[in-house]
Amino acid sequence: MTTAEITEELRALLEAELNGIVSSRDMPLYGMMSYHMGWTDSGGGPVSKTIGDRAHGLLCLLACHAAGGDIATALPAAAAVELVENFCRIHDDVQAGNPRRDNRDSVWWVWGPAQAINAGDGMHALARLALFRLTQAGVPPTVTVRAFRLLDEASLRACEGRFLDLEAQEKIDLGIEAYKDMAHQKTGSLFSCSMNLGALVATYDEDDNSDLLEAMATCGANLGVALQMHQDLLQLWGDDDGDVPDASPDAMNKKKLLPVVYAFDKASVGEKRRMGEIFFKRVLEPDDVAKLRGIIEGLGVREECGEMVNRYRSRALEVLESVSLSSDGKKQIQQFADDLLK
Amino acid sequence: MTTAEITEELRALLEAELNGIVSSRDMPLYGMMSYHMGWTDSGGGPVSKTIGDRAHGLLCLLACHAAGGDIATALPAAAAVELVENFCRIHDDVQAGNPRRDNRDSVWWVWGPAQAINAGDGMHALARLALFRLTQAGVPPTVTVRAFRLLDEASLRACEGRFLDLEAQEKIDLGIEAYKDMAHQKTGSLFSCSMNLGALVATYDEDDNSDLLEAMATCGANLGVALQMHQDLLQLWGDDDGDVPDASPDAMNKKKLLPVVYAFDKASVGEKRRMGEIFFKRVLEPDDVAKLRGIIEGLGVREECGEMVNRYRSRALEVLESVSLSSDGKKQIQQFADDLLK
Repeated sequence: MTTAEITEELRALLEAELNGIVSSRDMPLYGMMSYHMGWTDSGGGPVSKTIGDRAHGLLCLLACHAAGGDIATALPAAAAVELVENFCRIHDDVQAGNPRRDNRDSVWWVWGPAQAINAGDGMHALARLALFRLTQAGVPPTVTVRAFRLLDEASLRACEGRFLDLEAQEKIDLGIEAYKDMAHQKTGSLFSCSMNLGALVATYDEDDNSDLLEAMATCGANLGVALQMHQDLLQLWGDDDGDVPDASPDAMNKKKLLPVVYAFDKASVGEKRRMGEIFFKRVLEPDDVAKLRGIIEGLGVREECGEMVNRYRSRALEVLESVSLSSDGKKQIQQFADDLLK
Repeated sequence: MTTAEITEELRALLEAELNGIVSSRDMPLYGMMSYHMGWTDSGGGPVSKTIGDRAHGLLCLLACHAAGGDIATALPAAAAVELVENFCRIHDDVQAGNPRRDNRDSVWWVWGPAQAINAGDGMHALARLALFRLTQAGVPPTVTVRAFRLLDEASLRACEGRFLDLEAQEKIDLGIEAYKDMAHQKTGSLFSCSMNLGALVATYDEDDNSDLLEAMATCGANLGVALQMHQDLLQLWGDDDGDVPDASPDAMNKKKLLPVVYAFDKASVGEKRRMGEIFFKRVLEPDDVAKLRGIIEGLGVREECGEMVNRYRSRALEVLESVSLSSDGKKQIQQFADDLLK
């Protein structure tokens, strides 16, 4: 099988696990979750198009496979992290007022913010319940408790990151170190948890798996930061299709995207003042975003941001060289990382 | 020591446990939580007044004590349920738009809805981390996993209840059975979990503790429903001090309070139409609430609602007669229930 075929097979297994968890309970609350996950339309009817990257769940499964573990055992862990990520997305959309997600109306846009908060809270609890399936898959209670701890620590750190991200909207000049800290918490921690959990489930009965777990955790953390930086670039310049967004909703929300933070670092006093004037406005208009993009491009930081993404990507993959993994497993992780950062 | 003194001592222990958990992490995110818990003002300065009922944590400790367990072992469980309840309150205030909580500004009113969602999400994750202290207190991993499951199931059921409660705002005639279902989910499940966890921690090394756990769970569930009904009555008629609220925020939010639901059940066609007209309005005014109260009082359902509270209270306490508990422990639970429903 090609790497792409393997990823597709893993995706199908993960999807079945996720679907089994969400549809195990019967109530319109879970209808909102099914909609968010892309399985139904807002009326509850089936949809055929696959949406959602499932990157957290897939990286958990790929880490398990590369570490020589059994995919079936890792499925509950993969589903759990994926559900935590998706609960965060549901709440993020409420918090940022994003009307759209995956080219569809976001949950709060369809059901209102109050019920969207419930959908997120429910998915947060459901993520934990998903993890109990580990014991059914034969994982001993001590390891299950450890898995819970990894998931809960990561959930809390992701929440801390979301706090910092929101707080940064009110700041003018964030600073690149503060940005990196925030990205580590917000995006790095859950990716780190995904790969850590996958490797833990694969190797818990081995004598010394601590180097392996640490390498996987570091790989995930760096990959997460690379992905957040990459997505920040897409917010301003679109993807390779030349599909440049007129007005990035994140930029209009005064989110401190990497290029914005970087530009402040490099700007002269005059350019800083021009950017400051834009961010002093209570609400940004599409015009302001265009102005901001112009200043940033003038400073030439776009390329440097791209290099920074590459550095994090390299760090993520290099750390895997220090531990023993199946060569095809490692290749699959590399391929997945490349696809993610395309 | 008197029952009141014992409860005060337990409260102090619980408060120290909760404070230790929240203040173990350093970030303004936790400042919002400290404020909500009543330990600081919105600027982070200390406050002296104790707020919050801590009913979930205290019932967990009282259940543990009555079952012959060690309070110190139950503290992590008590703190965990208390944090779940408080995360729900933070989110409830955002969802309902309540500007006040415990006679102070609510978290979202001070920090905005987006950060309040983060404060709640963070507290949800922190509740799980609180429970890991069980293993430090000597509880074996299998029992800890079981405790996690109880907490997660209860969190999810509470979320389902909050969903049903919000959904009911859009319905005119809810029906008394649907109300009871909702109250069981929303309020009963976490109280049930509190008492169940307290007894589990006290008796996990006993051969057959299943009857005891079931009795505690049933007691908690009924007490929770009684409390929700009782609070619904307070929303319309205030407390014994004769402090009748002019305009209940819950009633203005079209919440289906027990007396409203009961009144629809008993109303004639004409009265139903008058109530329906009020609820058809997009937004209720204080005047509408006064009209509603008038119709409900005319139907004489206030007394019947009070009797219903008493029935749930009795059911809660009767079930404890069937199992072996220390007599002073049982008395403390009774006294606590009476204080709660005063």
